[in-house]
Amino acid sequence: MNKSDVINLILKDRKNTPKTHSTAKFAPSNIALIKYWGKRDNILNLPMTDSLSLSLGNKGATTSIEIIDKENDEFYLNNEIQNADSPFSLRLSAYLDLFRFKEEHYRVRTQLNIPLAAGLASSACGFAALVLALNDLYAWELSLSELSILARLGSGSACRSLYKGFAWWQKGIHANGMDSYAIPLETEWPELRIGLLIVDGSKKLIDSRSAMERTVKTSQLYAMWAHQVAHDFIVLNEAILDKDFVRLGEVSEHNALSMHATMISAWPPIVYSNADTVNAMHAIWELRKQGLELYFTQDAGPNLKLLFLEKDSAVVKEHFPGVEIID
Amino acid sequence: MNKSDVINLILKDRKNTPKTHSTAKFAPSNIALIKYWGKRDNILNLPMTDSLSLSLGNKGATTSIEIIDKENDEFYLNNEIQNADSPFSLRLSAYLDLFRFKEEHYRVRTQLNIPLAAGLASSACGFAALVLALNDLYAWELSLSELSILARLGSGSACRSLYKGFAWWQKGIHANGMDSYAIPLETEWPELRIGLLIVDGSKKLIDSRSAMERTVKTSQLYAMWAHQVAHDFIVLNEAILDKDFVRLGEVSEHNALSMHATMISAWPPIVYSNADTVNAMHAIWELRKQGLELYFTQDAGPNLKLLFLEKDSAVVKEHFPGVEIID
Repeated sequence: MNKSDVINLILKDRKNTPKTHSTAKFAPSNIALIKYWGKRDNILNLPMTDSLSLSLGNKGATTSIEIIDKENDEFYLNNEIQNADSPFSLRLSAYLDLFRFKEEHYRVRTQLNIPLAAGLASSACGFAALVLALNDLYAWELSLSELSILARLGSGSACRSLYKGFAWWQKGIHANGMDSYAIPLETEWPELRIGLLIVDGSKKLIDSRSAMERTVKTSQLYAMWAHQVAHDFIVLNEAILDKDFVRLGEVSEHNALSMHATMISAWPPIVYSNADTVNAMHAIWELRKQGLELYFTQDAGPNLKLLFLEKDSAVVKEHFPGVEIID
Repeated sequence: MNKSDVINLILKDRKNTPKTHSTAKFAPSNIALIKYWGKRDNILNLPMTDSLSLSLGNKGATTSIEIIDKENDEFYLNNEIQNADSPFSLRLSAYLDLFRFKEEHYRVRTQLNIPLAAGLASSACGFAALVLALNDLYAWELSLSELSILARLGSGSACRSLYKGFAWWQKGIHANGMDSYAIPLETEWPELRIGLLIVDGSKKLIDSRSAMERTVKTSQLYAMWAHQVAHDFIVLNEAILDKDFVRLGEVSEHNALSMHATMISAWPPIVYSNADTVNAMHAIWELRKQGLELYFTQDAGPNLKLLFLEKDSAVVKEHFPGVEIID
C-alpha cells in the first residue's frame, strides 16, 4: 500500500477543476501530551500507539496555494522563496505529486509564526494548513477525518493539527491507515496554558523521523513504550474529564520524559536536551517542590513547553521571563 | 532471611578474640561498565542482574578498625570525627552491629581520596575496606568470595571493590545470596584509562538506594533492563577478551545511558545530570565524530567517567583539562 492508493481511496472521483487560488488556511501547531514515537508503517506514517495533543492557539502555519503556469512548483516560506532543491521544497513537491491530476504546478505560500524545526511541530501545522488549502483549491469538501489522513501522509503528527483544543490520534489497525486519523475531544479547558520556553531556536541535531527509526531499531527499553502509552492514556483521559490539572501535568511530563528515555537508550544515543534544557527542568522541579503547579513536556528538540493554569501565568512569567504564553 | 543469618552462615564458629587494632586496609573504588540498578532483595542487597566493573587504581578508601573501651562507636572520616547521629555514623554502626559478639565498640578511621557521595562509589570502597579491616581484626581468614558477600551486606556494589581490574558480580539465584558475590576477571588491560570528570562535587539530590527503588516501582521501561543487561554482558565480555576498545566503550556508554533512561522514566523523574554533565556529553560525542575513541559512563551522580586508551591520554587532557586520569 502506498500513498497514492490511500489518496485514491479518499478522493475517489473528486477530480474537480481547481480554482486558480485557494483562500489562506490556518492550522495550529500542536503539542502532544501523550507522544507519538515510533511508526508501524514508515511510508504511510502509521504510528505504533495512539497519541493525544493540545493545539497551540494562533501559533501555527497559514498557507495558500495557487495553480501556476510554470514548469516547477514555487514555495515561499515567510515570504522568502525557497531553493527548489532545498529539503523543504523537495519534501513539499513530493507530497504535491500525490495530487497533480493534470500535471499542474503550484505556488505555495506559507507563513509560520513559530521557529522552524526546533521541536515546535512546524511540519505538523504546515502540512495541515496545506491540506486545508488543497481542499479549498479543488473544492473536495472532505471531512475532517479524511483531511486528517491526508495530512498524516505529509507528516504523522500533522493529522492532529486540524483542531483547536485536544486532539486524539487513533492509531488504527488497518494496513491502509484509513482508520488512523485524529478526532477532537469534546472537553474544553480554557484555563489551561502552554508556555513556549525556547532555549535554542537553532536546527535539530537529528530529524524526528530518523530519531524515531533509530529508537525503534536500537533501544531495548522501547519495547515497553506501547505499554506505557496505554497506561498514560487512561490517566490523561480521566484527568481531562475531571479537569484535574496536577494529574494532567504529571502524566504529560512522565510521558514526555519516558519518550526521551527511549531515545537516550538508543544507539548512538539521542539527547535533544542541552545545558539550558536541563537547567530549566531542574528549575521547574524546584518550583514544584515549593508548591507551584508547573509541569513540562518536550518534543524532538531542546525546547520545553510549560504546562500550567491561567491563575499561575504571572508567577510563571516571573520565573521564566522569556516564556511565550499561549492562550 | 536477614543479614545476621547470612553472617552466621559465613562466620560459622569463627568467634575469635579480636586484636586491639587491625592494620589499615585499602579497597579501590569501582566503576561499573555494566551497571547494577535494581534489587531483588532490599535487605540483603541482592541485585536484579549481574554487573561488571573496573577498579579505580589507587582511588578508594583506606580503613582501620580498633576495639575501644567506650559506650559508643567512634567514626573518623578523613581525620574528622563524625557526629554519632549523622547518617554516616548511623549506617556504619548498624552494619557493625552484625559483628559485635561481645558488645564491643569500635573506632573506625577511614580515609577517602575521592569526593563523598558524588557518584564515585565512596560507600562501595568504604564498606569493602571496612570488611577487609574486620577480617584482619578478628583473624577470620575468609575467602575473597566470602568477604565480597559481607561487603555486599553493607552496600551492594561494595562486593566488587575487593579486586583490582575487572570484577564480575554474579547476581546469584538463592534467597540467602550465598551465590551473589563478585569474582575477578582474568584479563588485564593495562592500556585502559578512566578519567574522572567531576562536574559537581556536591552531595546527590537523591541517594542511589532510593533512586533504584523508585525506578523499579514506577518506571515501566525498567521491565526491559534485565534484558538489556543480558545482551550487554555478552558484548562486553567479548570486547574484553578481544581487547576491542571501541566495543567496550560503546556497550559501556549505552548501558550507562540506558540505566539513566530508566530513571528519567521513573516518577517523580530522577535526573542526576546537570547542565555541565550534558555539555560534557555533547562535547564527547562531537570529539568522537572527529575520530577520537572516547566514551563515558555515568553513575548515580552528575559526574562522568571518561573511558579511553593510554595513547589518547594527552588529547583527552587537552580537551578536558580538569579530568583526573587514573592509571
